[in-house]
Amino acid sequence: MSLLVVGTVAFDAIETPFGKVDKITGGSGNYICHSAGHFTNEMQLVSVIGDDFDQKELEYLQSIGTDIEGVQVKKGEKSFFWSGKYHMDLNRRDTLVTDLNVLADFNPVLPESYKKAEFLIVGNIDPNLQAKVISQMLERPKLIALDTMNFWMDIAQDALDIVLKMVDLLIVNEEEARQLSKEYSLVKAADVIRKKGPKYLIIKKGEHGALLFHENRVFFAPALPLEDVFDPTGAGDTFAGGFMGYLASTRDLSFENMKRAVIYGSAMASFCVEKFGAQRLKEVSRQEIEDRVQVFIDLVDFDIILQQA
Amino acid sequence: MSLLVVGTVAFDAIETPFGKVDKITGGSGNYICHSAGHFTNEMQLVSVIGDDFDQKELEYLQSIGTDIEGVQVKKGEKSFFWSGKYHMDLNRRDTLVTDLNVLADFNPVLPESYKKAEFLIVGNIDPNLQAKVISQMLERPKLIALDTMNFWMDIAQDALDIVLKMVDLLIVNEEEARQLSKEYSLVKAADVIRKKGPKYLIIKKGEHGALLFHENRVFFAPALPLEDVFDPTGAGDTFAGGFMGYLASTRDLSFENMKRAVIYGSAMASFCVEKFGAQRLKEVSRQEIEDRVQVFIDLVDFDIILQQA
Repeated sequence: MSLLVVGTVAFDAIETPFGKVDKITGGSGNYICHSAGHFTNEMQLVSVIGDDFDQKELEYLQSIGTDIEGVQVKKGEKSFFWSGKYHMDLNRRDTLVTDLNVLADFNPVLPESYKKAEFLIVGNIDPNLQAKVISQMLERPKLIALDTMNFWMDIAQDALDIVLKMVDLLIVNEEEARQLSKEYSLVKAADVIRKKGPKYLIIKKGEHGALLFHENRVFFAPALPLEDVFDPTGAGDTFAGGFMGYLASTRDLSFENMKRAVIYGSAMASFCVEKFGAQRLKEVSRQEIEDRVQVFIDLVDFDIILQQA
Repeated sequence: MSLLVVGTVAFDAIETPFGKVDKITGGSGNYICHSAGHFTNEMQLVSVIGDDFDQKELEYLQSIGTDIEGVQVKKGEKSFFWSGKYHMDLNRRDTLVTDLNVLADFNPVLPESYKKAEFLIVGNIDPNLQAKVISQMLERPKLIALDTMNFWMDIAQDALDIVLKMVDLLIVNEEEARQLSKEYSLVKAADVIRKKGPKYLIIKKGEHGALLFHENRVFFAPALPLEDVFDPTGAGDTFAGGFMGYLASTRDLSFENMKRAVIYGSAMASFCVEKFGAQRLKEVSRQEIEDRVQVFIDLVDFDIILQQA
């Protein structure tokens, strides 16, 4: 039931209408592990950091079951740094700084013990690197999930098309799904994208929930209407981490179980936004997660006995 | 189980990326009756038209159970006319023409036989007129629903505040809820708005579904992910009509039944957008409606057995 996670581990500086932090731990790989760690303790992380990184944070990742043999530490170099500022409505943000640092020449190499992982999620990095990671696997994982973003569609569409053929599941947001498919309707977009390779597709709609497509089926998971969103950073990766962690722990790839994984992922994302960075993910208990899932159940529950016309 | 509907009956000219119509029947009262008529045949309509209006359309409304005694016909005057053009994404539209015509000095008067209606929905008109209509009722309806829009918040907030105290349910979209409450979070917006009067609140989120708030409960109804949206005009009124028609036919104001009404309203709206104007609402059968509701059931269905931590 091992879950191989490829993604960034970074420093973030974030400003929201509710406050500001100068240097906290972020990155897709970091959020995914923080979230998945609530479901599985057999994670393997591939990433790169500078020697400025906080040792305590690495120890925390280990404490929740993350093997960090695949985390390269570059002596004398700085970790990836991102800084952003959110608008009042929190749906829009301006990137203030992107210092790639160690990420600029990241060459992901899988340790031998990682090469038979059963579940693989490849976070948003250069699609050439994503393909390179997948190619190193000795056995085909049960499920390979991929994240990407508009940036790569703009500058590396060919490489992205290649990696799309190698994966089972693509996780993107609405805007990315539309750009990738050149279709406005998400139903049509889902058809076009799945013809490119992935047989499963998740379209994240932020505060409006998420859609899971597979064959001729579609599942809609709501987002929780929240009183306060404190910091949306990492919510998408936290969703993906909860989704993959749940699947890895249950090892059941039926559509019914994928739907459950989407709900658990959504629940984890709803915690993530309550505090800066991954702080809330460190604190939340399994009971709180189950209670939050109950809120999702109640939110969409209705009972109609259809009439025969 | 009579349903009193106050709203416009008008001509619309509509252009969408998929086609164009010069003069079709529209207006909130028209859409509400077309939709509610699938659930009840005891509707009473209050509106105003010119003598240019299409007699066949009035006969159609009568054929589905609409009493049109309250529809004033102004000799020598023209019916309300609206013209709009939708952008490619169909979420944005430009109003090209608004000719108030007969609506400019509309003075809604309820026929005696209307004054004991059990259900009342007051469409989007001047809040002063909305209050005037409600004041004419001889008996308090079981449920009074109100629609409004940003325009009235800009120019008639005081009158709107008065009418809000007179109603049970307000139906608005996200943007309107935010403007009315001055809160971005819809949860906070719902609290503020319900303190203004209505104990129920529906926030329509268009292609993202709808939220129903009552006391400490919230229900989220998804919108159907549609392959094609042909013409969104009237979808909101069609939702409201299906919602009120279902309630009027079942006469059950429990939260459970309100949730069902939201689903039936959403199903009706999903038909409305398939063709220009109210055309699809004229054609759709009860069996098609039930089948569509089944799609909503399947769309959000999941089954999680919560673990005890």
